[in-house]
Amino acid sequence: MRAVLVTDHQVRFDAEYSAHSRNDCVEVDVIQAGVCETDLQLIRGYMGFEGVLGHEFIGIARSGQFAGERVVGEINCACRTCPTCEAGLPTHCPNRTVIGILNHDGAFADTVWVPEENLHAVPDSVDDDNAVFTEPIAAAFQIPFQLDLSGFQSPVVLGDGRLGNLCAQVIAAHGKSPLVVGKHVQKLERLKKLGIATQLLDDVEEKRIADLVVDCTGSPFGLLTAFQICVPRGTIVMKSTFAGETGPNLAPHVIDEFTMVGSRCGPFAQAIDALARMQISVSDLITARYALEDSITALETAQKKDQLKVILDVQN
Amino acid sequence: MRAVLVTDHQVRFDAEYSAHSRNDCVEVDVIQAGVCETDLQLIRGYMGFEGVLGHEFIGIARSGQFAGERVVGEINCACRTCPTCEAGLPTHCPNRTVIGILNHDGAFADTVWVPEENLHAVPDSVDDDNAVFTEPIAAAFQIPFQLDLSGFQSPVVLGDGRLGNLCAQVIAAHGKSPLVVGKHVQKLERLKKLGIATQLLDDVEEKRIADLVVDCTGSPFGLLTAFQICVPRGTIVMKSTFAGETGPNLAPHVIDEFTMVGSRCGPFAQAIDALARMQISVSDLITARYALEDSITALETAQKKDQLKVILDVQN
Ligand SMILES: [Zn+2]
Ligand SMILES: [Zn+2]
Repeated sequence: MRAVLVTDHQVRFDAEYSAHSRNDCVEVDVIQAGVCETDLQLIRGYMGFEGVLGHEFIGIARSGQFAGERVVGEINCACRTCPTCEAGLPTHCPNRTVIGILNHDGAFADTVWVPEENLHAVPDSVDDDNAVFTEPIAAAFQIPFQLDLSGFQSPVVLGDGRLGNLCAQVIAAHGKSPLVVGKHVQKLERLKKLGIATQLLDDVEEKRIADLVVDCTGSPFGLLTAFQICVPRGTIVMKSTFAGETGPNLAPHVIDEFTMVGSRCGPFAQAIDALARMQISVSDLITARYALEDSITALETAQKKDQLKVILDVQN
Repeated sequence: MRAVLVTDHQVRFDAEYSAHSRNDCVEVDVIQAGVCETDLQLIRGYMGFEGVLGHEFIGIARSGQFAGERVVGEINCACRTCPTCEAGLPTHCPNRTVIGILNHDGAFADTVWVPEENLHAVPDSVDDDNAVFTEPIAAAFQIPFQLDLSGFQSPVVLGDGRLGNLCAQVIAAHGKSPLVVGKHVQKLERLKKLGIATQLLDDVEEKRIADLVVDCTGSPFGLLTAFQICVPRGTIVMKSTFAGETGPNLAPHVIDEFTMVGSRCGPFAQAIDALARMQISVSDLITARYALEDSITALETAQKKDQLKVILDVQN
């Protein structure tokens, strides 16, 4: 089948990839897939990943309880038997594979294998261009899952990209008024149209404006900005992971007694529900789309500063 | 007066230092002072500090409500008028000086100037060798001030040094049974005598043993060990600050969704009370003492691995 592979720190398109079938999974025919910042980090060596990229997708299940239905899939494939799984933390299973990220071929391909328990049927009211955002929206919904947002008065989202946009919308959907601080006028304009307050990073003069900072900058140095704008004993949510050995010195974290919360994958059911109720606006975020054959160009495009979500159309 | 100074990244003893008197402070005749890991970091350039070192001390107040009494002093000297102070966070006042750390001469000297509201009288039952530990014990008590320890089942303290020892004792005083993981057999033996469980770092085989890790290693890379032994969604308390530009990559923090809590200075009243009730055992921690004139040797000694607390006897 056709697939987009990372091998030896290089990404390439393979028209005749011999896929590894997985007996414990449902084969899903991919309709379309989204390019994520993590994909770009994986190409740079994050996790030492080798295999088929892609973890944001919508497809059609070939078998099982969802056979023939449009589905999206949670990406952490847990063993379901270890103490971590039995403690109710399957997304943290030490034996897990992660679709398109860790020992599990991803969705930039004609088909992807997904454990049946990871699949969620997509209602007809949510079209493909919306449904493909389920995974990143779920990641944004992980913030209110981990933190009671009602306790915060001045949340700031750092970063006006794909994930920052969705996190801001999820915070707004919880009755809070986030400020999105970014570097890109056009991306901030999109948020303004949704009624979300924005500010250019260069215009942030007042220090210590946030009691909650969500770092979606996609850079290890976004944290330095978070340290500057967060009030003492404030909370900083970190949503991004990076390749590389080092990060910033954490002395400000200790001195200002911040609470830093690592936040990763989130609840798919809530994300699908929010899409069905049109609580989160996403189709406006698609800035480019490519056929699977043009995936190398698509990945290059996704790195450009004017892009938000780049889509790979697998079924044309 | 005599003083131990950092200037141009060099530490030196000055027999005739012209002290900066502070009208808004009480002059305190220093009896003795303790050497802290932070002093060693300041000498290496942390905070760019220039001035008299020393922030752990007991002395006798020359004036004010405690005139003639033995006192210890909180180190953050707040403006008491800014919004942060008015919000009840004087230790985070952006206008603050910090005794021996930030724009305020410290206690490795014949006298130190301390705001009257920072002073606490020491009861007769707490002798000098105990009272000099008030500041680091208060720092350890900051952990239960920030976190409800009752929610944790398997706390681990990383580091068997001065601060690790005190944090372990404070956690034990809150009814929990901490495990101290360290590198030094003799330091771990001292903890065992107090009934605290210990393990050599090299003997820690089982991963993910802690739902709470308190990093007192005094190294930016202690955090890497914390990342390895903390359960997913566990809590990591960071007690140490360091000179330098970088720290470890925080990808594990995001992937394992840890909560990292920066923790600094703590409540003096609780620390004095714990000393008076002999809840915390400290005099056993003093491994060397020097006259103020021998402070350079004292600071060198404090860096040796077999040392716990090094005391400077200012009044002989
Ligand atoms: Zn498992
Ligand atoms: Zn103030």
